[in-house]
Amino acid sequence: MRHKACKARQILDRVGDKWSIAVIHQLGTGTKRFTELRNGIDGISQRMLTATLRALERDGLVRRTVHPVVPPRVDYELTPMGRTLLGTICQLLSWAFEHSDEIDQARADYDARVAAS
Amino acid sequence: MRHKACKARQILDRVGDKWSIAVIHQLGTGTKRFTELRNGIDGISQRMLTATLRALERDGLVRRTVHPVVPPRVDYELTPMGRTLLGTICQLLSWAFEHSDEIDQARADYDARVAAS
Repeated sequence: MRHKACKARQILDRVGDKWSIAVIHQLGTGTKRFTELRNGIDGISQRMLTATLRALERDGLVRRTVHPVVPPRVDYELTPMGRTLLGTICQLLSWAFEHSDEIDQARADYDARVAAS
Repeated sequence: MRHKACKARQILDRVGDKWSIAVIHQLGTGTKRFTELRNGIDGISQRMLTATLRALERDGLVRRTVHPVVPPRVDYELTPMGRTLLGTICQLLSWAFEHSDEIDQARADYDARVAAS
């Protein structure tokens, strides 16, 4: 049980990474090409997007399809397992959206308390 | 909107950290002392638990209460905002539990494909 909990945490650490969340969220609306993903995710570098997609593909959450056309076309989409994560990811994102001002305020209060003590 | 999305991702990156998830999950069952948390989370170091609790306190998700007794007693509990995150965190953990074998299999398959190509 402890081993399993530890493994679950490791999976979450990977999947809960901010770029993974952004990619899964983007793919939630359908199949995308690399440049579409890159344009849709503010602040992600080409290298980071490549690494994130590869990790998600390795985890079985994203499928990469190379179409044999000239020039080659590569599509990314969520696998059925990736889709099972989508609802929770969307919930997490909504939570972060909703509470971001409250969190900012809490941080400012905390920093003021620490500075005063 | 883009700025807000970027901020939401940063919040998630912090909150989605594996130790934060473990601490929030543990505190879901009630107020805990430091040593209780440490014993309940396999593999966490004293230093990492201290840093995680401090970050969650700063974000306004965890409240730390020092009781003026001898020896001093320090309790940790979720704030009302921390409680709003609990359902989603539990969902994420269940997801990771449920899919950990499938993810292991996907990784093994991916690595075998890469090795063969």
